[in-house]
Amino acid sequence: MAHSKQDILRAINYYNEKYQDLYQEFLAFLKIPSVSTSEANKGDIQAAANFLVGKLEKIGFKNVMKYPTSHHPIIYGEYIADPQKPTVLVYGHYDVQPPDPIDEWETPPFEPSLRGDYLYARGSSDMKGQIWAVISALQSILDTRKPESNIKVLFEGEEEIGSPSLEKFLKNHKSLLDSDLVVNPDAGMIAPDKPSITYSLRGLAYFELRFYGPKADLHSGLFGGVVANPANKLAEVVAGMHDEDGKVTLPGFYDNVRKLSQKERKALSRLDLDENHYKSMTGAPKLSGEKGFTPIERAGARPTLDINGLYAGYINEGAKTIIPAYAVAKISTRLVPDQDPKAVYEGMKAYLKENTPETVRWELDYMSGAPAYINEGDTPGLDLFISALEETWGIEPLMKREGGSIPVATSMKNILGVDSIITGFGLPDDQIHSPNERVHLPTHRKGVEALIRFFMSF
Amino acid sequence: MAHSKQDILRAINYYNEKYQDLYQEFLAFLKIPSVSTSEANKGDIQAAANFLVGKLEKIGFKNVMKYPTSHHPIIYGEYIADPQKPTVLVYGHYDVQPPDPIDEWETPPFEPSLRGDYLYARGSSDMKGQIWAVISALQSILDTRKPESNIKVLFEGEEEIGSPSLEKFLKNHKSLLDSDLVVNPDAGMIAPDKPSITYSLRGLAYFELRFYGPKADLHSGLFGGVVANPANKLAEVVAGMHDEDGKVTLPGFYDNVRKLSQKERKALSRLDLDENHYKSMTGAPKLSGEKGFTPIERAGARPTLDINGLYAGYINEGAKTIIPAYAVAKISTRLVPDQDPKAVYEGMKAYLKENTPETVRWELDYMSGAPAYINEGDTPGLDLFISALEETWGIEPLMKREGGSIPVATSMKNILGVDSIITGFGLPDDQIHSPNERVHLPTHRKGVEALIRFFMSF
Repeated sequence: MAHSKQDILRAINYYNEKYQDLYQEFLAFLKIPSVSTSEANKGDIQAAANFLVGKLEKIGFKNVMKYPTSHHPIIYGEYIADPQKPTVLVYGHYDVQPPDPIDEWETPPFEPSLRGDYLYARGSSDMKGQIWAVISALQSILDTRKPESNIKVLFEGEEEIGSPSLEKFLKNHKSLLDSDLVVNPDAGMIAPDKPSITYSLRGLAYFELRFYGPKADLHSGLFGGVVANPANKLAEVVAGMHDEDGKVTLPGFYDNVRKLSQKERKALSRLDLDENHYKSMTGAPKLSGEKGFTPIERAGARPTLDINGLYAGYINEGAKTIIPAYAVAKISTRLVPDQDPKAVYEGMKAYLKENTPETVRWELDYMSGAPAYINEGDTPGLDLFISALEETWGIEPLMKREGGSIPVATSMKNILGVDSIITGFGLPDDQIHSPNERVHLPTHRKGVEALIRFFMSF
Repeated sequence: MAHSKQDILRAINYYNEKYQDLYQEFLAFLKIPSVSTSEANKGDIQAAANFLVGKLEKIGFKNVMKYPTSHHPIIYGEYIADPQKPTVLVYGHYDVQPPDPIDEWETPPFEPSLRGDYLYARGSSDMKGQIWAVISALQSILDTRKPESNIKVLFEGEEEIGSPSLEKFLKNHKSLLDSDLVVNPDAGMIAPDKPSITYSLRGLAYFELRFYGPKADLHSGLFGGVVANPANKLAEVVAGMHDEDGKVTLPGFYDNVRKLSQKERKALSRLDLDENHYKSMTGAPKLSGEKGFTPIERAGARPTLDINGLYAGYINEGAKTIIPAYAVAKISTRLVPDQDPKAVYEGMKAYLKENTPETVRWELDYMSGAPAYINEGDTPGLDLFISALEETWGIEPLMKREGGSIPVATSMKNILGVDSIITGFGLPDDQIHSPNERVHLPTHRKGVEALIRFFMSF
């Protein structure tokens, strides 16, 4: 506990006094269309990077660097209070999603517009808004009392294009990035009154499976009943990948699945994401999934298998009476700790060897794989982060698992050996990746307070 | 026996002399992309129709008419030698299947290419090639000696879209089409040395089945395990349409299936179409089908169910991690006497009601249907047609059942009260409905000879 309560309150007061200035700078940051997917915005990405470099230097960060990559620069900066003291590394990305479909924006995506408690702009939530919360907190601390521990920041400009340069950068800068924990505010909260920390993310193993039958499409009248139809056989074999209880039947699939403890199940049930929540969010007529688990458990803590794409034969308008020569399924499994994507690949191969009839020939491509991520709870600073959220919101934060992947958390763990606190102050209806992205400013401001509390207690 | 042997030989000689001219005209006919399924080819269909009208008039047919329909015109023409004499009605269709997948053609589908004994083009076999054999025979007869019996032709442009206008046309033109038998050369031979007559054809019931899940594609990480994946559910439901013995599980499906007599099974076994024949023809690694029946029985005398097309989600290169909002299967059943397509539709609906989970919403379209056809053997002229084939090939023709559908044969029987001689000079490896469709020209030429013999003896 590095700082006194008075020090922390002084920094929070500073933030409230300087809020208007910081807000104006935030608007300037949002006006830069740093769309990483678009070649035309390459200069804007540089402008956004320069903006951050300038700001970091202005608030007192040292060794601020803009590292070139094959696409868009990675920004690094640090405040080293004492090399013997613990270090927190903050991750962020300053690139944004394309604004398409642009016609559906009520105000232009790069002209921030304040309406009520919301500020509308591309990146306002994902995640220039989160970066700005971090910078606001750091300025408030550095301008009132020097931190006693070390803070490093790493902001990339390629997250929305899959972070193609990040792993290499981590590998090449291990000692520069040496730290005790990572704070990654690229995830959100469930509601304005529900601060949360994501402690687990699912992994992935993605396959393309192809069944080949006759050498060419056949007339289904002349040959129906004589040769196997690869589309029917694919349907049969893929159907067999789940049993009646919604469990995946690939050999060994559940062998290394970490069981949910009663304590964890109870904690997840606090999230209050019930059947109705998911139904209204997805429009599905009825929920579905592995028997014996709640929706939130199934989405975050249990592995799944889904067809992502399916193709065979004639799919245009009208009728064509053929037996297709081949059929294709793109199939992905979402993995949980401690499943190994390569072992899942082996299980998939074993299942296909066992279950594919000899009447077709099969090919399986392993397209990508990443293990799940879990923060074991022994991360230094995790308790401090929880306390910071609790003090700010007045309630115990929710600990949640998320079904998607944040590959950067896995990379940080694997390459730097550091766990991540995955958090953030965006809300589910911020419309990230969609038109009219927005940030809820009262929540954003609470987030800055919580970050001040955390950085000053670390 | 209307004509002398000399007359017949003169007509055959005429054909051989004029072969090159007729071949050039055939190429011009094949170059017209008369794809009936495609709105974009509407003008081409008209061009093909006009081509036939012009040719029929040129060879001396009278009363040649292009009857408009809701889609593509029906062409009629006649040569009436003597209203008291018997009349043969020749059926054909001048529309063709779409050429997709177009990339798999070695030469463009509508630029006929001669390689060895084969002419490659869409429609070269099915069935512009058969129409051309008929026209070649008729020209050879009319230019050498006037026929003594009556010949009518009816060529439609909608066969590949299920002949939606034909029944109405038959009903409205019964006296125009009054005849003693129909020659329908839309079926093929077993091998170049095995002329054959098809006495039974399978019927068809064609469906499009759609499963709907979430209102839009979902992120498979965030929602995998929570909502039903329509593609997985479709695979499961379609997989259940066959049991382990390869039998179709739709309720009532086999109720009206006519049993094969021992005599018929023996006759079919003469066809000598064994496992190896079908394997080498199709390139399938191993045959497959209903337990307890030989390949030829399964292809001709037993009903089947096949997926003709399958689509869901992301099917381009690479990976996209989505739960598709919907999944589609085109499914067709091939029917035998005395199955009723409407009853099969009812069975399909009953199966889906019973087996589709409530986690998806389903829609079923009944796209087309036609009962099977069987010629009971007492058709006038059948013996003459058998003799014409035998004289041309020097062997007794094979009587066979065919797996494809020629709904027109059923319609002709039901509406006009006339049986069809279903024959043709295409070969099993003509790749009809597939890329690189072709016609074996030596067989095509023998077919013309046989048609000359038949028309001149009728």
